[in-house]
Amino acid sequence: MSIEGVHLIAGESVAGQGTFHATNPASGERLSPQFSDATADQIDAAVAAAFQVHESRGAEDPQARARLLDAAAARIEQAGAAITKRGVEETGLPEGRFEAERGRTCNQLRMFASVLRERIFTESIIETALPDRQPVPRPDLRRRMRALGPVAVFGASNFPLAFGIAGSDTASALAAGCPVIAKGHPAHPGCCELIGKALQEAVRDAELPAGIFSLVQGQSFDVGTQLVQHPGIAAVAFTGSRSGGISLWKLAATREVPVPVFAEMGSANPVFILPEALATRGEEIASSIAVSVRLGVGQFCTSPGIIVTVSDDHGEAFKESLSASLCSEPPGTMLHPGIREGYSGALEQLASSHGVEVLRRGPTGSGACDAEATLLQADALSFIADKTLQGEVFGPSTMLVECSSLEEMLRVARTLEGQLTATVHGTTDELQNFRQLLDLLEDRVGRILFNGMPTGVEVGEAMHHGGPWPATTDSRWTSVGAASIQRFVRPVCWQGFPDQLLPADLRSAAKGRHRIDGVWQDPGSV
Amino acid sequence: MSIEGVHLIAGESVAGQGTFHATNPASGERLSPQFSDATADQIDAAVAAAFQVHESRGAEDPQARARLLDAAAARIEQAGAAITKRGVEETGLPEGRFEAERGRTCNQLRMFASVLRERIFTESIIETALPDRQPVPRPDLRRRMRALGPVAVFGASNFPLAFGIAGSDTASALAAGCPVIAKGHPAHPGCCELIGKALQEAVRDAELPAGIFSLVQGQSFDVGTQLVQHPGIAAVAFTGSRSGGISLWKLAATREVPVPVFAEMGSANPVFILPEALATRGEEIASSIAVSVRLGVGQFCTSPGIIVTVSDDHGEAFKESLSASLCSEPPGTMLHPGIREGYSGALEQLASSHGVEVLRRGPTGSGACDAEATLLQADALSFIADKTLQGEVFGPSTMLVECSSLEEMLRVARTLEGQLTATVHGTTDELQNFRQLLDLLEDRVGRILFNGMPTGVEVGEAMHHGGPWPATTDSRWTSVGAASIQRFVRPVCWQGFPDQLLPADLRSAAKGRHRIDGVWQDPGSV
Repeated sequence: MSIEGVHLIAGESVAGQGTFHATNPASGERLSPQFSDATADQIDAAVAAAFQVHESRGAEDPQARARLLDAAAARIEQAGAAITKRGVEETGLPEGRFEAERGRTCNQLRMFASVLRERIFTESIIETALPDRQPVPRPDLRRRMRALGPVAVFGASNFPLAFGIAGSDTASALAAGCPVIAKGHPAHPGCCELIGKALQEAVRDAELPAGIFSLVQGQSFDVGTQLVQHPGIAAVAFTGSRSGGISLWKLAATREVPVPVFAEMGSANPVFILPEALATRGEEIASSIAVSVRLGVGQFCTSPGIIVTVSDDHGEAFKESLSASLCSEPPGTMLHPGIREGYSGALEQLASSHGVEVLRRGPTGSGACDAEATLLQADALSFIADKTLQGEVFGPSTMLVECSSLEEMLRVARTLEGQLTATVHGTTDELQNFRQLLDLLEDRVGRILFNGMPTGVEVGEAMHHGGPWPATTDSRWTSVGAASIQRFVRPVCWQGFPDQLLPADLRSAAKGRHRIDGVWQDPGSV
Repeated sequence: MSIEGVHLIAGESVAGQGTFHATNPASGERLSPQFSDATADQIDAAVAAAFQVHESRGAEDPQARARLLDAAAARIEQAGAAITKRGVEETGLPEGRFEAERGRTCNQLRMFASVLRERIFTESIIETALPDRQPVPRPDLRRRMRALGPVAVFGASNFPLAFGIAGSDTASALAAGCPVIAKGHPAHPGCCELIGKALQEAVRDAELPAGIFSLVQGQSFDVGTQLVQHPGIAAVAFTGSRSGGISLWKLAATREVPVPVFAEMGSANPVFILPEALATRGEEIASSIAVSVRLGVGQFCTSPGIIVTVSDDHGEAFKESLSASLCSEPPGTMLHPGIREGYSGALEQLASSHGVEVLRRGPTGSGACDAEATLLQADALSFIADKTLQGEVFGPSTMLVECSSLEEMLRVARTLEGQLTATVHGTTDELQNFRQLLDLLEDRVGRILFNGMPTGVEVGEAMHHGGPWPATTDSRWTSVGAASIQRFVRPVCWQGFPDQLLPADLRSAAKGRHRIDGVWQDPGSV
């Protein structure tokens, strides 16, 4: 499978003029071929094909969609070596990371296939007619989940596979029955093309209409703008920066017909360490934090960026351990120069803020994308007073916030904006007497962890990868796990129809999970 | 129970300066007492009390909330005669309507109590730890639904009970565990006060903290603005006009922390009549439409405002029948002068639009709020060309759109904006050959009906009272039925916690409906 610098529009490879290229962040080398910004006509063609599939019910059969998702996993595995090779060149991430991420991505695709087979998270609900009910009869009511329509997916820079062209957003949208128009990430367009081609082949394998998936490439902001504002787009999914997510959200809100945008915009993922945990496990916790912060050169949306402790003698030892574990390794290569500059800029701004000091920087390197680990410290009162200190720094840094008391720790918790995660380290006993911390954190996060690290997002049914604004644009949805399918469906109630006129999944003989007259039916299989 | 012209703030009656009063729309008589716009301090007090209940988990026990909802129904029944008396004076709606609406409202409150007892629609999902899983262990993951926080509820003018202070939005928000600050409707403030006092008593009956419910009165737009922009408000529910709903939605989107607004803004609820149905049941359908349009003097969000037929000989007879049934009765009294003026204005604008004519007006009356039934007709091509012709006219009118062919009928369907409902009259045979109409309509509505009338919204599990923009602000939620609770909760995932530290509903011994390691558990009772 070669990389041609094309858009993939409804099964066709479409060439452009060649306006940008990927760069190897480790070497600075330009990577061929050239890619081009999708034109308005190309975006139109992709959306029109997707809309046609939607309107004609071309993706209505859940069994066909399950086949597509399974085939996508198989095709990505087949293209695995090529994707890893190009991915390493484009991102600077190590080979092992691509191998592991491929496993996770393919498992994720297959999980959605099984969600479709079990019909969980998009159940139909049926209430049969009660013609003799007083004072008025009850009509036959059948509520099903219908796909929203074509979804525009903006993948992340930091997970080219798991949150990319065939990542969680695409997999859940396809599972929901929505055609997808993915926007390639300009930092790894070759990787996107390879994954896009694997998806194209999977569409053919599953004998689904080609318009169900398109990939448009683009470096210019205009490509994304045109896509989000296209009247045929019914929803938008995004994983990336706060500024990027909010821009798309605002664009969607100013359409003639506004559409939902689910943007996962990352967060600072505070970790609270209670005194007993600090005393008994301080060194181990410091070492785990250092590993977690340095994962993927700090380019994880769940990277622990704020560490809250109560200052005591153990606090000093903890600080020493953390400083040593975090800042003694050589620098890592960040994804692209823009992200590297963002990291420096955010650190500079923090370092010049009142009450913040740089405790230690790790070894620097000579590459344009080399990033050194950094440990910052903020005094708790400054942290409480200045909301800008809690913004996400995307890179291998973390900020220690030492409190003078547990009371002050609660004030720090209370001041937090919405987060994807918060973590508490402590003993069961000390938390039973400090329940208020858990309550305050639960109301500010999507996931709360006990004696763990926030990096590592399990893909399953109980996961919630979301959280209150500004971690995401809507706290009610997750972008990871089986429930993420729910972002892309809406209920429709069919009232009083004879069986022959109902959509297949509402007919009386339909298999799969239903709730009928207040009783759950056996799931069976579709 | 007397009407004092007060706000009800966290269990207290709070008097104001007296700035507005209700008016009897039938007689024009001013009704005492005077009411006042809630001040910023009063709104602050209500939201602060609500937020305190939320943060302290004061409404966390679903059993207590079920008691509250049952008690609310009982207290409203006790106050039934007083509410009906004042309601008739304030709205011009007949006594029987209040009696029926009370029944529906109390059933609705009790339905949410039973939803809580069965724990449907807010299930917890548990995945237990797999410490030996390869390549990495799975942590214990438990996802529960946590209340969003204080909800601001703006009730409708047209259903003072079922969509009012103790209506669907309030009932579902309380069921979700969210404290409610209801904004009284300035056209029926006395009715709101009586219902609010019944709710206050129910809060005491259930021994829940008083801050869980407040009622602030107000005629000025400022009251609603301050409420929606208050940082303590976590969500907004609204039933009313498109302009009102979109205003609140925009206000919420410009907050520092935007919050979800679910606005149900009504629609034109098109009815499509196929040739065989027109030939065999034309007269009966005409008569049903007339009844449906005249229900509540046309002040139903599901009133059928567009009737689409294919012109033929039967069409002429149908038109005659519809015209006669709709326009021969005396006028009805609309809710208030503003709504009456809106009706005249909308009719005037339509009548002066290209391709539209007034076929017949019913008898007029001398009261300031008297409204005559009106039958309009638009030619199909004008209707397709001019989107303004399909806007909702709030009042007892409907517009006939005669198509030259079934093909043209499809074009009319395709041009429709988002609707709460669409209805199709036809035989099963003719629809089996015309499936495309159902597909086009399904993608534009929240509920699709066969051989029925859209007015009459069943309160149950399979109902969907929602629909694509501009019928509502988010097609994924319903404002009626058991599923409406889902608007006001968000998932939180608890990872790796010992049982003692988990919220009660996630502990291993918790009763109620769960999904554990991929298997649904018996619902039991909470």
